Amino acid sequence: MTGTESVPATMRASVLTGPRTLTVKDVPTPACAADEVVVRVAAVGVCGSDTHYFRHGRIGDFVVDGPLILGHELSGRIVAVGSEVPADRVGQRVAIEPQRPCRRCKQCRAGRYNLCPHMEFYATPPIDGAFAEYCVIRTEFAHPVPDTLSDEAAALLEPLSVAITTMRKAGIVPGSSILIAGAGPIGIICAQTARAFGASRIVVSDLVAERRERALSYGATEVIDPVATDIATAGLDVDAFVDASGAPAAVMAGIRAVAPAGRAVLVGLGSSEMLLPVEHIQNLEITVTGIFRYTDTWPAAIHLAATGQVDLDSLVTGRFALADAPQALDSDLDPSSLKSVVYPTTG
Amino acid sequence: MTGTESVPATMRASVLTGPRTLTVKDVPTPACAADEVVVRVAAVGVCGSDTHYFRHGRIGDFVVDGPLILGHELSGRIVAVGSEVPADRVGQRVAIEPQRPCRRCKQCRAGRYNLCPHMEFYATPPIDGAFAEYCVIRTEFAHPVPDTLSDEAAALLEPLSVAITTMRKAGIVPGSSILIAGAGPIGIICAQTARAFGASRIVVSDLVAERRERALSYGATEVIDPVATDIATAGLDVDAFVDASGAPAAVMAGIRAVAPAGRAVLVGLGSSEMLLPVEHIQNLEITVTGIFRYTDTWPAAIHLAATGQVDLDSLVTGRFALADAPQALDSDLDPSSLKSVVYPTTG
Amino acid sequence: MTGTESVPATMRASVLTGPRTLTVKDVPTPACAADEVVVRVAAVGVCGSDTHYFRHGRIGDFVVDGPLILGHELSGRIVAVGSEVPADRVGQRVAIEPQRPCRRCKQCRAGRYNLCPHMEFYATPPIDGAFAEYCVIRTEFAHPVPDTLSDEAAALLEPLSVAITTMRKAGIVPGSSILIAGAGPIGIICAQTARAFGASRIVVSDLVAERRERALSYGATEVIDPVATDIATAGLDVDAFVDASGAPAAVMAGIRAVAPAGRAVLVGLGSSEMLLPVEHIQNLEITVTGIFRYTDTWPAAIHLAATGQVDLDSLVTGRFALADAPQALDSDLDPSSLKSVVYPTTG
Amino acid sequence: MTGTESVPATMRASVLTGPRTLTVKDVPTPACAADEVVVRVAAVGVCGSDTHYFRHGRIGDFVVDGPLILGHELSGRIVAVGSEVPADRVGQRVAIEPQRPCRRCKQCRAGRYNLCPHMEFYATPPIDGAFAEYCVIRTEFAHPVPDTLSDEAAALLEPLSVAITTMRKAGIVPGSSILIAGAGPIGIICAQTARAFGASRIVVSDLVAERRERALSYGATEVIDPVATDIATAGLDVDAFVDASGAPAAVMAGIRAVAPAGRAVLVGLGSSEMLLPVEHIQNLEITVTGIFRYTDTWPAAIHLAATGQVDLDSLVTGRFALADAPQALDSDLDPSSLKSVVYPTTG
Repeated sequence: MTGTESVPATMRASVLTGPRTLTVKDVPTPACAADEVVVRVAAVGVCGSDTHYFRHGRIGDFVVDGPLILGHELSGRIVAVGSEVPADRVGQRVAIEPQRPCRRCKQCRAGRYNLCPHMEFYATPPIDGAFAEYCVIRTEFAHPVPDTLSDEAAALLEPLSVAITTMRKAGIVPGSSILIAGAGPIGIICAQTARAFGASRIVVSDLVAERRERALSYGATEVIDPVATDIATAGLDVDAFVDASGAPAAVMAGIRAVAPAGRAVLVGLGSSEMLLPVEHIQNLEITVTGIFRYTDTWPAAIHLAATGQVDLDSLVTGRFALADAPQALDSDLDPSSLKSVVYPTTG
Repeated sequence: MTGTESVPATMRASVLTGPRTLTVKDVPTPACAADEVVVRVAAVGVCGSDTHYFRHGRIGDFVVDGPLILGHELSGRIVAVGSEVPADRVGQRVAIEPQRPCRRCKQCRAGRYNLCPHMEFYATPPIDGAFAEYCVIRTEFAHPVPDTLSDEAAALLEPLSVAITTMRKAGIVPGSSILIAGAGPIGIICAQTARAFGASRIVVSDLVAERRERALSYGATEVIDPVATDIATAGLDVDAFVDASGAPAAVMAGIRAVAPAGRAVLVGLGSSEMLLPVEHIQNLEITVTGIFRYTDTWPAAIHLAATGQVDLDSLVTGRFALADAPQALDSDLDPSSLKSVVYPTTG
Repeated sequence: MTGTESVPATMRASVLTGPRTLTVKDVPTPACAADEVVVRVAAVGVCGSDTHYFRHGRIGDFVVDGPLILGHELSGRIVAVGSEVPADRVGQRVAIEPQRPCRRCKQCRAGRYNLCPHMEFYATPPIDGAFAEYCVIRTEFAHPVPDTLSDEAAALLEPLSVAITTMRKAGIVPGSSILIAGAGPIGIICAQTARAFGASRIVVSDLVAERRERALSYGATEVIDPVATDIATAGLDVDAFVDASGAPAAVMAGIRAVAPAGRAVLVGLGSSEMLLPVEHIQNLEITVTGIFRYTDTWPAAIHLAATGQVDLDSLVTGRFALADAPQALDSDLDPSSLKSVVYPTTG
Repeated sequence: MTGTESVPATMRASVLTGPRTLTVKDVPTPACAADEVVVRVAAVGVCGSDTHYFRHGRIGDFVVDGPLILGHELSGRIVAVGSEVPADRVGQRVAIEPQRPCRRCKQCRAGRYNLCPHMEFYATPPIDGAFAEYCVIRTEFAHPVPDTLSDEAAALLEPLSVAITTMRKAGIVPGSSILIAGAGPIGIICAQTARAFGASRIVVSDLVAERRERALSYGATEVIDPVATDIATAGLDVDAFVDASGAPAAVMAGIRAVAPAGRAVLVGLGSSEMLLPVEHIQNLEITVTGIFRYTDTWPAAIHLAATGQVDLDSLVTGRFALADAPQALDSDLDPSSLKSVVYPTTG
C-alpha cells in the first residue's frame, strides 16, 4: 500500500452485532490489496436492504451470523492505493461500485459480473460495508466524480445504477411508455431515469397521495392511485412495467398493463414466490425479469447526475452522524422520509 | 380467381355446432381474395386447442358462439389463385401458415404479426379452420414444400413452427443446455428442435415412464421423473427451460432449475395465473416469457424436416377420415397416442 | 373518398420536367385509396436528394425518366379520407412518413419495411412527392402532431427520423460517446438527437469553422477541424461514429477513431465504393453499416421535437413559395444556409 | 505449483530467432502462477499467422523483436497445477484457449475479453506459444476434452472457435443462407460450422477446382468458381457473407451478394485497407464487421467436434516432429495441404 496520506490501523465503524443492535467501535482498517484503493468514506446512503438486515438479520438466503458493517451506497476520497495502482489516484473524490466479483467464473467472463457466484458485495454477510471511516475497493470500481457532484449525490449513484440497469432491461428508449409501481426512493429515481432515457409517458402508481404528488415533480407524466383505478384494465398498454413496490397486487396488475411484446422488470423485493398473469404473458409475449445489482453503470450514472438529468441531492431527507446510524436505518418509518444519509467521518 | 382447376361452390366440412358436436355437411367454399390461393386440403393435424374447443367451447377469452370449422395444422395443394397471384402456383404442394394478420397495425409494422390484434387465425372463433375440403390463405402464407415431405409432415410444420419459435425465444444455440417439461407432441418436437438448434444437453421431464422413454428417441440426452427427482434442486443449471406441460408444479420447479441469466419459455397452456419463483428470477436475472404462435418459421421448418433433423412422420399415431374427426379429437384420451391426423379429401 | 372538405380534381404542383427545370402547373390531384388520407400540404423541407435529382436527374440506380414532383419532408392537414379511414381524421394536422411499402414481402413481414423491394417512396422516380397542394398517404403514415409543433418542425420530423434511425443503429444510450462527421443539416440534427439519446460526449468535425461553431449550439460537446487534427489518431476512442459528410477521408478517419466493439453508421451519400480501414474493423471488431430511411420513428420524433429536446424550427434558414422551388433547391449553394422550406399552399 | 508429476526446469522448444530461422533448444519451462496449470503439449496446429511470423517477422503492428515460440492451436495433458487449482485436474486431457486477458479493463468487464488491450496471446510477440514440451495457461482456459476427441481434433478446436465466433457474428441460425469465400482451412471449418448452426444453403467460392470439390464434402451445398460466375450479380441474396480469403475482389463481390439487412464478416486477413461497396451497404443496411479471436467458444466447439457435426481429424494433411517445424510452417506451399500438426512431445 502506498500513498501520501497515512491510514490508521484501526477505524471507527458502526457494527451490527445483533438484532437492532448497532455499536460504534474501533475495528481494524481493512487491508488494501495490490489492485485496490483505500477510501475515506464521506457519505453513505441508507438502503432498504440495510434496514432489513438491521431489523431481521437476514434477506432470503443471506443470513447475518457474525458482526457486520452495513452500508453500500457510498462516496469518499482515495487516501491510499495498492502497489499496482497509480499513486496519483490519491486525493481523488470517488463513488464506489461496492462489489468484488471473482473475475474468473463463467458469469464474469461473459460480462455479467453482477451474477458471479463468488461475489463479495458490501454489507452482504459476511462482507463488511461502509458505515465506517474507511473502506477498500478495487481501483476500477472507485469511479472518479466531478466536483459538481456532492458527496450525497456521489453516494446515491448506487441506487441510480439500479435504476439505469432497470431501464436497460426495460428497453426504455426515446418515445417509450412506462408504468412504475411504487414512489419510494427507487421508484422516484426510476421515474427520473426513465425520463433521461427518453420515455415520453411515465406513469407512476402509489397508494399514498403525497408520494404520488412527489413523483410528479420527479419525472412522472401522470400518476395513478391503484385503489381508485384498476391498473390491469385501465388500458395503459405500456411498453414496460417496472415494479418498485414489491407488492404482489401491484405486480399482477402492472404486468397486465403491458402491451404486446412489452417487458416487465421486477425490482422491488417481496415474497419469494408470486402469482403472475401467465396467460397474459403468453398471449402478448411479454418478457418478465428482475435485476440483481448492475454492471457498468457508474459512467452513465455520473453523466446523468452531473448534467442534472437526474436530481439526487433533493432526495436526501435525513442526515445522520455515524453514531446515529440506528435512527437513519429507522427513518423509513416516517412516511415523508425519502433517503437518509450517514456521514461516517464528519462531526 | 383464376386457375386451371375448377373449385366447387360448396365443400364438405366437419363443423362444430355445439359441445362435442361435429357434423359433416356441405358449406360454401370460402371466397378467394385477389392475393389469396385456394388449397385442396390433404392432411390436418389435431392440436390440443382443437380438442379444447371441441370439449369446452372456449379457450380463455376466445369463445365459440357459432358454427366453427376446426383444424389449423395443414397441408394441401393449390388448386386456384386470386387475380394478383401468379397462375403457375396452381398445382404446388404447400404447407399452410394459418394466419391472416392485418399488415397495418403497429405490431404488423414491427414484424410481430403474430401479435396483431386484428389477427384472423384458423380455427379460432369466428374464423374457420381446415377440417374441410378447401381453404384459402394469402399466397405468401402457402409455403411450397418439396416432394420428399409427406402430407402429414407438411401439416406438422405448424407445431414445428411453435417449437422453432420456442427455441428462438429460449436462445438455444450450439452448446446450450435445455430442460423441457412434458413429453407430449410439443415437448417431443421441442426436444428434436433443440437438438437441431445445437443444444448439447437436452433434459426432458415427464410423469409417465413410457413418455420419458419416447423422449430419449427424439433428441433428449437424459430424462427425469419429476416425482423421483426434485427438479428445482437437482442442480441442473440449464441455460433455458421450456414448459410444454402447462403444469404449475413443473413451471415452478423448471424455472428454479435455470442458471443465471437464463431463459424460461412457457408454451404449455395451464391456468390464467401461476405462482412463479420471483426471488429466483430476480437474483439470477432470469427472463420468463411465453410464445404466441410464430412469425417467419416455415422456411426453417421445411429445412429441418426435409433434412431429417426433425422427424415428424413418426409422430403420427392416428389417421382419420373427415367423418371420424370426433374420434381424432378424442385420441388424446389414449396415453400412447401422440399425434392424430385428419384427411378431409381422402377415402 | 369521404370527408367534410372538397378536394379539387386538379392541383398546382412544381414538376421536374428536365435537368434543372421545374414548372408550376396544374396536375391531377392524386387518387385516395380506401386506406389512405388526402393531405393539404403545409410545409415541405428541401433535402439533398431533391437537389440532386434537380441537378443530375438521378441518384445511383434511381433515374428520373418522366415528370416528377420532388419533396418528401412534409406536414399538412388531412382534408379527406378513404372509405376505411375514420372520418374524424379530417382536420388533423399531420406529419407524413412518405413511404408506401408492399406490406407483404419478406422484409415487410420482418418489420423492415424500409427495405421493401416494392417500396413506393415520395419523390423517388417514378413516385411523386410533395411540392404540390395535395398528396395522399396511407392513414397509418399520417402522424398527428400537437399544435405546439410548427408546420416547419412537423415537416422536419422526416430528417429527424433519419437521425433517430442513425442513433438506434449507432447504439447510442445514456453515457455513450459519438463522433459525427459533417455539420450540415443531418449532422446538426444527429448531434441534437445524440444528446437526446443520452450521449455524454458528442464530437462534431467539419472543415468549416462557422459550421463547427453552429454544431456547438446544437448539442456538440466539442468540435474538431479535421485539417488541424488527425481524427484517426487523436485517441477519440468513441463508442460510435456517424458519417454525415459523405467524404471518403472523413469516413476512413472516423472509423479509425472508434473504440473496440464500437459501431460506425454511414449516413452521408458519397461514392458507390470507398476505401475502409478493414484491419482496424477486424482487430477491434467494429461494425459498419448504413441506414436507408426508417421504420417506426415518427412517435419518437414527435416526442423529441415537442419536448424541445431537438430544435427543428431554428434550422430553417430559407422560406420559399411553390413558384420559387428552384431557388429553394439551390439554397445549399449559400454556405450559411442550413434548411430551406417550401410552402405549396401559402402566399 | 503442486501436482503428482514432476515438471523439469527446462524443456525443448522450437524458437524463432530470426527470419525463417527456427532452432530447437532447451529453454526454461514457463513458471506456473497460482491460478494456472502446466500442460504437456500433445499436438499443435499450424496457423497462417504462425507461417506469417516465420516468414515476415511481423503481422501488422505486431513485430517479432526477440526469440519467440510459435504455435497457438494446441492440446495436451495437465501435469501440474498452481496453488489455487484443484489438484485433481492433474492428468486431464485438455484443449487450450491460448489467451490471458487482464480481467480488469473495460473490455474484460464487459465480457469482450478478446478485445482486452492488455491481452497476452500465445505466439503473438512477445508472448511465447506452444511449439514446446510444456506451456502454462490459466485453469479456466484449459478445457477438458472427452477421450473420443483425438489430440489433433482437440488442438483444432482453436480454429473451430474462430468459425463459431464467425457464425455468431454472421447470425447463422436454422434456415440461414451463407456465402463463404475461400476454401482453405478456415473456409472449410466455417462451412462445416455453418451447417452445424443450421444453415440451409452454404455456398463456397474458391479459385481452385480441387478446393471447391473439397468444400462439397465439408458442408457446402454448392460451390462457385468466381472467375466463371460474377458473385456480385449472381443473385445469391444470402443472409450472410463470410470472407475467409482475404482477397479484396472476393470481399467486394461477396458483400454485394448479401440480401437486405444481411451481415458480412471479414475473417481473412488481407490489406490494411480495402475498397468496399458502401452504397450497397447503405441501401440494403448490411452490417460489416470482422472477428478478432473468440470468447466462450470451447464448450460449443467440444460439442460440435465430439458429436461429429464438425470433422476436424480429416483436415490434418501433414504431421511433423518438433524438429521439423520449419517444414510444417511451409506446408501451405503445397496446394493440396490443408492443415499441418506439430507434435512437440512425440517421437
